[in-house]
Amino acid sequence: MRFKLILAGLALALGAGLTLTAHSQMKPEVMVKQRQAAMTLQLKYLGPLFAMAQGKAPFNAETVARNAAYLDVLDRMAWDGFDPSSKDTTATTRALPVIWSEPAKFKEAQTHFQSAVSELVAASKSGDEAKMKAAIGAVGKSCGACHDHFREKR
Amino acid sequence: MRFKLILAGLALALGAGLTLTAHSQMKPEVMVKQRQAAMTLQLKYLGPLFAMAQGKAPFNAETVARNAAYLDVLDRMAWDGFDPSSKDTTATTRALPVIWSEPAKFKEAQTHFQSAVSELVAASKSGDEAKMKAAIGAVGKSCGACHDHFREKR
Repeated sequence: MRFKLILAGLALALGAGLTLTAHSQMKPEVMVKQRQAAMTLQLKYLGPLFAMAQGKAPFNAETVARNAAYLDVLDRMAWDGFDPSSKDTTATTRALPVIWSEPAKFKEAQTHFQSAVSELVAASKSGDEAKMKAAIGAVGKSCGACHDHFREKR
Repeated sequence: MRFKLILAGLALALGAGLTLTAHSQMKPEVMVKQRQAAMTLQLKYLGPLFAMAQGKAPFNAETVARNAAYLDVLDRMAWDGFDPSSKDTTATTRALPVIWSEPAKFKEAQTHFQSAVSELVAASKSGDEAKMKAAIGAVGKSCGACHDHFREKR
């Protein structure tokens, strides 16, 4: 397939959103899909670490280091998807309106999560299993703290 | 929310898959969701670059560099989700059976894409706009080459 054909296909699939750099001009549904994708991948790489921290899976320092490095990039990807223009969407989302009425607190929760991931990256280089497990627990707590306040309960 | 409660919630949400490290023991639906999430995020960060390469958006070297760095990590995340155990799934997927009947060719297509992304990362550090645009085009071609053969046409 030639490059132009690919681009035509992409444009068709995602509407005008793709070719616009300003996030606020992107369709709410695309923003929801993208931020949920970031959450899905964060959980993909956190899940096995939670299992290790709980003793439900064998501890593997290499997996901790790899996943921590992935998370250190993934933890930057969800947030621009919570643009205020995504408030009114036909997509299924558990995002609560408090995200937009308390932006400073939401931002603080993001920073808290990112700091916890940075600590996990540092711990993963220490060779200290207990330290890594504690850092995994701290990341889990930062997820929960944000979800508690900003995500609809199920 | 306490850490254990979070873990209970995660386990509830994703079934047993989460606590297993072996990918082949994970539910096909979870694998499909995770690999689609990786594709969604790859497109999130490639889309604006395609627009720049086509002259449909203003060229921005900083965005190219940032997105290239993100893609350099994202391009490792989809592939374990194509485990043969995911062939039979109730999830909606465009993955074609040829993925599992031609594993060497599928692997080659992944490597081709990853190499193209690596070239883009290198180009993004060159300060050479034409070189960056050519590298973006090469990434697009590598996406299309794989999709042509391994993804259902719509």
